[in-house]
Amino acid sequence: MTMFLDVPATGFTGNILDRADEIRRDTAGLIAMRARPDARWLVLDGLNPVVKQAEGGPPAILWAYRSDIPHDALSIFLGMGPHGPRFAAAAPSDELVADFGGKVLDARAAGSLLPAPEAAIVAQARSIIDWHQRHGFCAVCGAKTELAKAGYARQCQGCKAEHFPRVDPVVIMLAVKDGHALIGRQPRFPKRFLSALAGFVEPGESLEEAVRRELWEEAGITTKRVRYLASQPWPFPSSLMIAAFAEAEGFEVRLDEEELEEVRWVTKDEVRAALAGTGDFLAPPPMAIAHTLLKAWVDEA
Amino acid sequence: MTMFLDVPATGFTGNILDRADEIRRDTAGLIAMRARPDARWLVLDGLNPVVKQAEGGPPAILWAYRSDIPHDALSIFLGMGPHGPRFAAAAPSDELVADFGGKVLDARAAGSLLPAPEAAIVAQARSIIDWHQRHGFCAVCGAKTELAKAGYARQCQGCKAEHFPRVDPVVIMLAVKDGHALIGRQPRFPKRFLSALAGFVEPGESLEEAVRRELWEEAGITTKRVRYLASQPWPFPSSLMIAAFAEAEGFEVRLDEEELEEVRWVTKDEVRAALAGTGDFLAPPPMAIAHTLLKAWVDEA
Repeated sequence: MTMFLDVPATGFTGNILDRADEIRRDTAGLIAMRARPDARWLVLDGLNPVVKQAEGGPPAILWAYRSDIPHDALSIFLGMGPHGPRFAAAAPSDELVADFGGKVLDARAAGSLLPAPEAAIVAQARSIIDWHQRHGFCAVCGAKTELAKAGYARQCQGCKAEHFPRVDPVVIMLAVKDGHALIGRQPRFPKRFLSALAGFVEPGESLEEAVRRELWEEAGITTKRVRYLASQPWPFPSSLMIAAFAEAEGFEVRLDEEELEEVRWVTKDEVRAALAGTGDFLAPPPMAIAHTLLKAWVDEA
Repeated sequence: MTMFLDVPATGFTGNILDRADEIRRDTAGLIAMRARPDARWLVLDGLNPVVKQAEGGPPAILWAYRSDIPHDALSIFLGMGPHGPRFAAAAPSDELVADFGGKVLDARAAGSLLPAPEAAIVAQARSIIDWHQRHGFCAVCGAKTELAKAGYARQCQGCKAEHFPRVDPVVIMLAVKDGHALIGRQPRFPKRFLSALAGFVEPGESLEEAVRRELWEEAGITTKRVRYLASQPWPFPSSLMIAAFAEAEGFEVRLDEEELEEVRWVTKDEVRAALAGTGDFLAPPPMAIAHTLLKAWVDEA
């Protein structure tokens, strides 16, 4: 039998909605679904979710009624949940805040503060709505496009071309050698913060080739074998993070100073301390797959 | 130490060009590079590569001189090769055919007939050139865009938005249970052809979630753990195929008849026969990662 291992849990996963693909193709079914009394909307205001929060409790998505959503708001189908159909809309939050005590939570904070399955729903909604907002025109002919398939496509009103939401694969990796792993600092990172190196996969390469190319470009490290660990969606705006280890051939580095300010070979003890918040650098938070990658590395035998 | 395993080789990988990212940002350097006497171009005519082929020998890329490329042809930088800089251009093939005995090879045939590192170069060129040809306008504002960064971006001439080539991640998987694997037939497949199930990764899901969703949507199969095997670029037009096994909970299937005409649970002996060309169904060719996936499954202990 194929050997299966548990893939570590990652941030923004665990969405329990059934995306119910068949509904997207069924215009009449979709209209009926929107009219159901148990239909609810996640509202994004400026791509940030509207949540509710009881005194001293954790935040949760504020599931709004259809009557709370402006008629002309951009609205997409998320999926069927245990309590009815779920949608997301881009809309101002003023009334939800005034009438229901809602508040707008920064989307990155949502990744840390919401229960994982709710953060995953926010990720789905945010990536798709952001894509619609930046794709009002057809890349083929320049004419206007309109939302189609319940939010999972746009169709050109001129040449009729169909366009689909982007998912941009990104490799994020630790080069490892003799008990050391390579981490680095991008210029935009907060002070003392170090993380796994990462970069977009390009057309015409495998994941393994992308891992090796990025380590070569950014740090001048040559690597041999690559091992996949886990993946996560990352809704800033719509990446698919793919985490891996890579077998480094040496320790010598050559920095791409446009991409990185510093790289450092660290030991497992140094990473353990950083993950515990007591190290001499700041490690990525649990919602980031770089955290999962570092933790998997220190935990392995 | 992290346990590394060899990832199986896949079609369209093994590109030996150094993509030399730093050249893309350096306009003067790029102009100098194009003028070098050892600069050469891969020509795509209708997205199919121009190749040369000696009597009875295998085809190989026909590397054209700059003087063979029309001045206004769409041209991108591929990378530095051992014999100089390499570019690709979209151009008619008539003169290369007449003067150098070139011929246009169908891009799918190229995947099977060219040496693997050359097929990989064709994949890189084809995905990027196709993207340029379908992105002449800005999705944000509808104005015209122009090629930028040596072919790795387009910039809007109106709102100045930058756009990057798409890479669309696709999961392709075998649900497995008790010595059986699930394969299926899409309506567009040739007669008797069966392959692994597959589908695009959507915004807001991990690879593992995409695998489980696709098996549920297309075949009504619920699965538990997922194991990554390997990946490959697939230049039709620009997918990143990610191959995995998934642990099925049962054998009962429910077909999505828009996606699949048939699914079948097969044994290792049946797959071995099909891979050898003697089975009662046709298996995918070695250039397709579905072949790699089936072969890995029958070969494992």
